[in-house]
Amino acid sequence: MSDIAKLIIGAGERLADIRYASGLSTPDDFLYLESEAGKFVICSSLEFARAKVECKPGVTVLNTADFADSANLGVIAEFAQNQQITKFLVPADFPLKLADDLRMRQISVEPLTGAFFAGREFKTRDEVNQIIRAQRAAERGMRRAWEILGEASVNRKKILVWHGETLSSEILRTEIDLELLRAGTVSGNTICAGGVQGSQPHNLGSGPLAADAPIVIDIFPRDMATGYWGDLTRTVVKGKAGATVKKAYDAVKAARDLAQSLLKPGAIPAEVTQKATAIMEAAGFSTGRDDAGIDYGFFHSLGHGVGLDIHELPRLSVKNHQPLQGGEVVTVEPGLYYAAWGGIRLENLVSVIPGGIELLTQIGDLLEID
Amino acid sequence: MSDIAKLIIGAGERLADIRYASGLSTPDDFLYLESEAGKFVICSSLEFARAKVECKPGVTVLNTADFADSANLGVIAEFAQNQQITKFLVPADFPLKLADDLRMRQISVEPLTGAFFAGREFKTRDEVNQIIRAQRAAERGMRRAWEILGEASVNRKKILVWHGETLSSEILRTEIDLELLRAGTVSGNTICAGGVQGSQPHNLGSGPLAADAPIVIDIFPRDMATGYWGDLTRTVVKGKAGATVKKAYDAVKAARDLAQSLLKPGAIPAEVTQKATAIMEAAGFSTGRDDAGIDYGFFHSLGHGVGLDIHELPRLSVKNHQPLQGGEVVTVEPGLYYAAWGGIRLENLVSVIPGGIELLTQIGDLLEID
Repeated sequence: MSDIAKLIIGAGERLADIRYASGLSTPDDFLYLESEAGKFVICSSLEFARAKVECKPGVTVLNTADFADSANLGVIAEFAQNQQITKFLVPADFPLKLADDLRMRQISVEPLTGAFFAGREFKTRDEVNQIIRAQRAAERGMRRAWEILGEASVNRKKILVWHGETLSSEILRTEIDLELLRAGTVSGNTICAGGVQGSQPHNLGSGPLAADAPIVIDIFPRDMATGYWGDLTRTVVKGKAGATVKKAYDAVKAARDLAQSLLKPGAIPAEVTQKATAIMEAAGFSTGRDDAGIDYGFFHSLGHGVGLDIHELPRLSVKNHQPLQGGEVVTVEPGLYYAAWGGIRLENLVSVIPGGIELLTQIGDLLEID
Repeated sequence: MSDIAKLIIGAGERLADIRYASGLSTPDDFLYLESEAGKFVICSSLEFARAKVECKPGVTVLNTADFADSANLGVIAEFAQNQQITKFLVPADFPLKLADDLRMRQISVEPLTGAFFAGREFKTRDEVNQIIRAQRAAERGMRRAWEILGEASVNRKKILVWHGETLSSEILRTEIDLELLRAGTVSGNTICAGGVQGSQPHNLGSGPLAADAPIVIDIFPRDMATGYWGDLTRTVVKGKAGATVKKAYDAVKAARDLAQSLLKPGAIPAEVTQKATAIMEAAGFSTGRDDAGIDYGFFHSLGHGVGLDIHELPRLSVKNHQPLQGGEVVTVEPGLYYAAWGGIRLENLVSVIPGGIELLTQIGDLLEID
């Protein structure tokens, strides 16, 4: 019998690995252990009754109160002793203090790098369907944003006005998030970044939105029932886009569409990223860093896996030389960012299937809204 | 010059310590270091431009791209070498792999237990005001829930009906969460647990809500702009509460009000918890565990600190013998839970001030809704 077991500690609401393994979503930390003897959730009285009902089939639920010492260290040590486990494999971000304390008790703790459960990277049809549900919510949110921008008027100062009020990033975000909630999802930090704010990829956007300038709208809702995420970005202009913005938009769209056409089992993420980058460079959009240390051009990765985490494996980046295998669900989201005028990002969600991809995004593309 | 520095790694959106120290909210991990040379945020190009604007005064922002090796390990090691740091103090939940790798490079890493920043436990007036703002949103959500329960009718099967539809936990939760969003906050996992579901303190509630049975409504929104939380629980009955429920409600209310009257600088959380428990026991509500291992009675702590985390120090529990000092913001939330009929929990939020408390909750108590 093996003396090695897997061990995770975390809250099901936040730690995707523990939710994936146990099926349990909780606000507080609990333990998950997987040994030759089976799969175990060990939680406090606060979660015990519910855990017995909600855990995946095959998971045995234990109560910390049934251990001599109900603190995590005591529980794990007693479990190890009972099952003659001498070594725990844990995720790379396992809490240091607990690991140090276990090691003090002569129990080996080895952090693993990369995927803790290899299966998480490759989605079942059920998982893809849950992601699609979240993606449909994101699309509802995007349609609502477009609708509001369509209804908005433009005042003499070129600022958007909606329902008699200045239309701000905050108002647009709230309207999107209300729509996400109505669709049974919880919003991540929806981005509505107009003008130069859009040149910072993670700027949420704030203040009045202006006409004739790009607005980056990035919507990533999490399905309340299942915990799976969707992810969608479009960039639109209320009014008329200038020549540079139009050109940048076309370059980003070409890069995205090229990348989508290249993704399939066997494709190398680094190569796809390079080709997508090259098409934007060929259109005249270079990447670099200015004198103030601010990056410009295309300086984030091409995409990332989506599942129980909004950012998970695999990464589509120049650093990833592992061929795709099929079953991955990834975003494809090239972007261009320049402090002079703002940013463009276009993001689709795809599932890698035999021979290519299944596009999980239904909503189309749109640059200008009248 | 000291060769010791504090080090945190995490995402500002999720790790309260790093947001508290830096002022920066991000979706992805960044580094925070505090040495005799000053306070430093080290983040990727993706956050750099925004971090320079949004970090607290006195924090120097560096770009990982300016380090020879931009991976976390390389960045920290180069920083340590430049500043001749030989030991990092880190939070107890610092990621194990990174700590192991630093130790391999002869850099000492010591996890601290308890508060990483002692100041977090004691709120400034600004922080209290931000918590109050979130709490007002929670109260708006609660009023909306009560309004809906007031509008609901009861069908022949004693099930609630609202706008011609069966009123479920899910519908009630969505309506509450919409209200929270309109108030500029993001909902935690709002609990609307009716009948026996309410006997599991963390059961979110699902399915049709019934008349004449207690519904535990626990609302904890996070202010979008500042990241501070509110926390509020009431338990109501649509229709008439039975004798046991009424008696339990009165006992929980008496326990809460007694605890509130005892909290002040110098009060011992363990003693306050014992007195609150005793008043419920004296009313006939005992605590224990049944043959199936399910706890009943009052089996969670009396309260917890609230700030940038929904659950933070100090804990109000039988295990905490440290006297309160003043400045803490804590929940006071006794409860009673019995699988036979459900649960009652009543939660207020208070700030510990000289001589007693400031009640941060404005909404009153209500058991029965017609």
